[in-house]
Amino acid sequence: MNFASDNWAGVHPAISKRLQEISSGFSTPYGAGDFDKNIEQRFNELFEREVAVYFVSTGTAANSLALAAVNRPGGVSFCHREAHILEDECGAPEFFTHGARLAPVDGDNGKIDPHHLKAEIARFPPNFIHAGQPMAISITQATEIGTLYKSDEIEEIATIAKNHGLPLHMDGARFANALVSLNLTPAEMTWKRGVDIVSFGATKNGCWCAEALLFMNPEMSKDLPFIRKRAAQLLSKSRFVAAQFDAYFKDDLWLQIARHANAMAQHLQIGILNAKNARLAWKAEANEVFAILDKPNIDKLQKQGAIFYPWNIPRNTVGIVNENEMLIRLVTSFATNKAEVERFIALLD
Amino acid sequence: MNFASDNWAGVHPAISKRLQEISSGFSTPYGAGDFDKNIEQRFNELFEREVAVYFVSTGTAANSLALAAVNRPGGVSFCHREAHILEDECGAPEFFTHGARLAPVDGDNGKIDPHHLKAEIARFPPNFIHAGQPMAISITQATEIGTLYKSDEIEEIATIAKNHGLPLHMDGARFANALVSLNLTPAEMTWKRGVDIVSFGATKNGCWCAEALLFMNPEMSKDLPFIRKRAAQLLSKSRFVAAQFDAYFKDDLWLQIARHANAMAQHLQIGILNAKNARLAWKAEANEVFAILDKPNIDKLQKQGAIFYPWNIPRNTVGIVNENEMLIRLVTSFATNKAEVERFIALLD
Amino acid sequence: MNFASDNWAGVHPAISKRLQEISSGFSTPYGAGDFDKNIEQRFNELFEREVAVYFVSTGTAANSLALAAVNRPGGVSFCHREAHILEDECGAPEFFTHGARLAPVDGDNGKIDPHHLKAEIARFPPNFIHAGQPMAISITQATEIGTLYKSDEIEEIATIAKNHGLPLHMDGARFANALVSLNLTPAEMTWKRGVDIVSFGATKNGCWCAEALLFMNPEMSKDLPFIRKRAAQLLSKSRFVAAQFDAYFKDDLWLQIARHANAMAQHLQIGILNAKNARLAWKAEANEVFAILDKPNIDKLQKQGAIFYPWNIPRNTVGIVNENEMLIRLVTSFATNKAEVERFIALLD
Amino acid sequence: MNFASDNWAGVHPAISKRLQEISSGFSTPYGAGDFDKNIEQRFNELFEREVAVYFVSTGTAANSLALAAVNRPGGVSFCHREAHILEDECGAPEFFTHGARLAPVDGDNGKIDPHHLKAEIARFPPNFIHAGQPMAISITQATEIGTLYKSDEIEEIATIAKNHGLPLHMDGARFANALVSLNLTPAEMTWKRGVDIVSFGATKNGCWCAEALLFMNPEMSKDLPFIRKRAAQLLSKSRFVAAQFDAYFKDDLWLQIARHANAMAQHLQIGILNAKNARLAWKAEANEVFAILDKPNIDKLQKQGAIFYPWNIPRNTVGIVNENEMLIRLVTSFATNKAEVERFIALLD
Repeated sequence: MNFASDNWAGVHPAISKRLQEISSGFSTPYGAGDFDKNIEQRFNELFEREVAVYFVSTGTAANSLALAAVNRPGGVSFCHREAHILEDECGAPEFFTHGARLAPVDGDNGKIDPHHLKAEIARFPPNFIHAGQPMAISITQATEIGTLYKSDEIEEIATIAKNHGLPLHMDGARFANALVSLNLTPAEMTWKRGVDIVSFGATKNGCWCAEALLFMNPEMSKDLPFIRKRAAQLLSKSRFVAAQFDAYFKDDLWLQIARHANAMAQHLQIGILNAKNARLAWKAEANEVFAILDKPNIDKLQKQGAIFYPWNIPRNTVGIVNENEMLIRLVTSFATNKAEVERFIALLD
Repeated sequence: MNFASDNWAGVHPAISKRLQEISSGFSTPYGAGDFDKNIEQRFNELFEREVAVYFVSTGTAANSLALAAVNRPGGVSFCHREAHILEDECGAPEFFTHGARLAPVDGDNGKIDPHHLKAEIARFPPNFIHAGQPMAISITQATEIGTLYKSDEIEEIATIAKNHGLPLHMDGARFANALVSLNLTPAEMTWKRGVDIVSFGATKNGCWCAEALLFMNPEMSKDLPFIRKRAAQLLSKSRFVAAQFDAYFKDDLWLQIARHANAMAQHLQIGILNAKNARLAWKAEANEVFAILDKPNIDKLQKQGAIFYPWNIPRNTVGIVNENEMLIRLVTSFATNKAEVERFIALLD
Repeated sequence: MNFASDNWAGVHPAISKRLQEISSGFSTPYGAGDFDKNIEQRFNELFEREVAVYFVSTGTAANSLALAAVNRPGGVSFCHREAHILEDECGAPEFFTHGARLAPVDGDNGKIDPHHLKAEIARFPPNFIHAGQPMAISITQATEIGTLYKSDEIEEIATIAKNHGLPLHMDGARFANALVSLNLTPAEMTWKRGVDIVSFGATKNGCWCAEALLFMNPEMSKDLPFIRKRAAQLLSKSRFVAAQFDAYFKDDLWLQIARHANAMAQHLQIGILNAKNARLAWKAEANEVFAILDKPNIDKLQKQGAIFYPWNIPRNTVGIVNENEMLIRLVTSFATNKAEVERFIALLD
Repeated sequence: MNFASDNWAGVHPAISKRLQEISSGFSTPYGAGDFDKNIEQRFNELFEREVAVYFVSTGTAANSLALAAVNRPGGVSFCHREAHILEDECGAPEFFTHGARLAPVDGDNGKIDPHHLKAEIARFPPNFIHAGQPMAISITQATEIGTLYKSDEIEEIATIAKNHGLPLHMDGARFANALVSLNLTPAEMTWKRGVDIVSFGATKNGCWCAEALLFMNPEMSKDLPFIRKRAAQLLSKSRFVAAQFDAYFKDDLWLQIARHANAMAQHLQIGILNAKNARLAWKAEANEVFAILDKPNIDKLQKQGAIFYPWNIPRNTVGIVNENEMLIRLVTSFATNKAEVERFIALLD
């Protein structure tokens, strides 16, 4: 009953197998070989346009390099007040951008409220040097609390971005889970709605170390080769990242994995909705379920072997959890087993 | 006949196999699981003391984090004028240290000359704020030109470091090749000679992505957990790095690989010494051989399928190469085949 | 009728005269001369303890160096959501700290709410590397909206700081105005209440370029000499800053100036309270008055020669200003003339 | 007999007087007022073209912001191995550029050797991400050892800069001294020879805090307003810097001061050439004279009240100083008195 995080899981067998298959022989390093180039081509096909592709070793690197690529002096990037880049990356985006700021924007359900976003951007009149200058907007899809920006919600934020000449970045650490839940194509969830840069995460969805930073307009990343090398994110034996993506995309494995993980989350959600001893915190839309339990029940679950994390209560929902309760997060992945989910649910009654 | 670099090779089969073996099941991420901790313990045994171990994704990250861990405002690190950290990392050490300087020190054979080192350090009198302040010394073992610091040479530099209260870092991207060539133990080549920090590289020696940053005195790295996370170098599924080291150390695989690579280099060296159409630039001591050829012979080799890089002529040996000649670098690895070496040598006659 | 800002005023005649008096002759540069050292001694007397004194050229430099002195990897400093360091320094604190974060804390009247402060700090459990680590708390005295932290309010925040081992910084760009309004001594407004670092501003209070960064515990600034030099804030002819402070402190000139400025602000405040065509936004406690006027009246004032700035409405008081109104800021200084104040007030009826 | 440095002197009386004259009244701060704008216009006239002018508080700030304005990821600026920016600014250029590198170039007489410059730039092939990328060339005029780049020497370096698309920066901390010595106009010593950016120093030449960063092509500095503010170098009461330049330029005061200082240096030089107990280290071309004395004579001079600094021996002239000797530097300024120079010379016999 391991629901701690999708990064507790190992590697999907098909990906592991592919890694082994390509392990011998020589190959041009640093992503310059044919094998890597072919995989880059796969991204073009998936996104239905030519995109610039940069493999990196962590999602934090992808997000931080995304902002570094569009950095400006005194720059300010707007993100949700509880976005992963703001709360869980130890200031990596600030480090990679030499101190550009992440400005927190409020909004319900873990999503930027467009009204607040406009108000925050308005605090930076053009050329007012004392305040600094807007440089990007970043959304997380799926969000840190397992919710999703719907197609029109992305578009609404993209319109604000466009009006201010700001690139729109999507932190897609759980890109696949969002995609299958919304039933969209990669193009539909990104550039067709106005997204310019994507942190395309695969590690949480069955790879072991495969993150791609994508620029819908390659020109936007023209400095990135130097920035990435300088950030120690240019892997020499890069083909092993490429190989993971190779297996990941083959026969839509990535979508299958995401569908399985999401289905397991839905299973958990229904179980919690019907449970005596747990409440759903809010609706789960991808592969993360947030529940409220009292402490004795949490102890009980843990004694029975369930693994999960308590979670910070979002600032604007402080009231939802009583004193004797805790908010917990349950995450599913390719490795989540239906029997285990059912065992967990049974323990909630 | 691929002698381009040891990072053109793939992964040693034993390491690849180990990766597959551990690919299923759940594990605490971010290096906090038992599997990772056990491998850290292996480093303790190898180095015959408790060392702090940090897995990272690239050698550049290891070197840069090494300096970041001992960073000081206005800090200056001394390294050879043609050290890898100075010439081949796109300023990553400066980025990770927020602009601490790498001060070039001259010296023959790719090695810091202790006399010059003392003179350079002397330019920074204590508390003279205008100049900045020394913060570290870094040596590369094996060096960028395939030579080695002998045991007493390390000690001589370490003594200077100690006299100035400076930590001594060893960039060990080719640690194993140096070790077996010098016939030393890890302890003998490092802390017993005064080395404080080691970038312990395994990627070039048969892994695909396995670098460990080691601190002989764990206290020296007390800020590193935050620095590493912030630098996007904390891998979530860290156990896959650990697994590579697991196979790497098992039955001394790493030493066997290094011995093979070095033997192939010696083979090349002898071939070049006896060749009509090539000269040895200087003595090869690990797994890199530098040769001087005229351009027609280089063309001929390349047409026959030999792959290698031309190399910058070290500043203090400018005279050794004539106008019609080029300096080339030949690198061997676990994947280098003896027959290929012999074919290459035959082409030099 | 110039109420634009206290930095629109020139230099108090006594300070100007002192600058001229010391203009000839030689003196050890970089703050190392006797003249500078004597002024540093004056700070010790004023603060009733040995403090470390660093002259810098701007208030932004003082604030940014204050945080740089106590910087930590992944560091987070807590300040009011509308603090000057967060809203008006173009990210200088982030630049000087290599990207440490300023975390906004809500609170009424421009002051950090201790309850919110505790909640924000609690989001950073010790050694939880993903979030980063608290490194400082910063308060502005007087605040950006002209209010003051009372003695016990400072102490309450200092207690929280102490409980978390965090240094407490006071941005004292208007230190003197706060001091005379609260009728405290420098010691009483700072270290006796738990303040560790003070940006002691004099430029806004009658100097032209005189800012001192003070550390109540000199040991806390042991790296600052290098940090300041590296930040280009070590003035060679530093004695001219010292000379400004010399005249500033003589016969309590600084307190007289501040009393005058505050009295002029009180005059404005009373005028606005009694005016037909203006409302007071909130109580003015130092030398800044915030008023709400409708646009026709603002136009009228400006046509009559009044100079002042519109101001961003604090986020938590959005409702106080109607659609046809604007919030304006009126600032007084040593150069504010009572007759001009009265003329301004007369125009409000 | 104070020859310690030109920053030991105070302020020229005409400049001091001007500061006092403009001390009352209100003025738009942050350099946006008419007074500042008028002075900027004076720079246009002096340089015979429209230049962008940025006042800053120190020469280190000017130099560091110059490079920050043209910064690139993995950027490398080439300067003489003993340039002031490399040896005496505690890494400020690296700090302001987020870690761009200063690459040392050898050359006699304190000047970059064009041959070496080309060789160093050649180590950075275009788009070779491992090495980084050239971003600027910086020359010091007068150099740190009191020599001058002649008109054609500037042009030769500018041609190399142009061929590589690099901006050429001139650190003109002693701009005036160089100008009058070479008998050139500001335009002739800068953009007419290919210089793009000038740190125009006035502090050492009779002001107390007046440095201007000039861009011959204003477009090159389009990001600088934000960069400068963020670097805490935007002075609020900026008009007091402007006032210093006002007096500085009036009736060519700046050139007169420089001529006096240079004449005093020539006087010292001739004295040393004829002295029994001192040797000239190399020819003085501006307001700094370098002499070699034995230690007893140095003691004698100091006992008689002479003040000067010992100096690091340039790396490529190590042999010129014997074991019992020292290299000393003698600097003259507006405040240097001829009688004192003669007294000093007399002591050398």
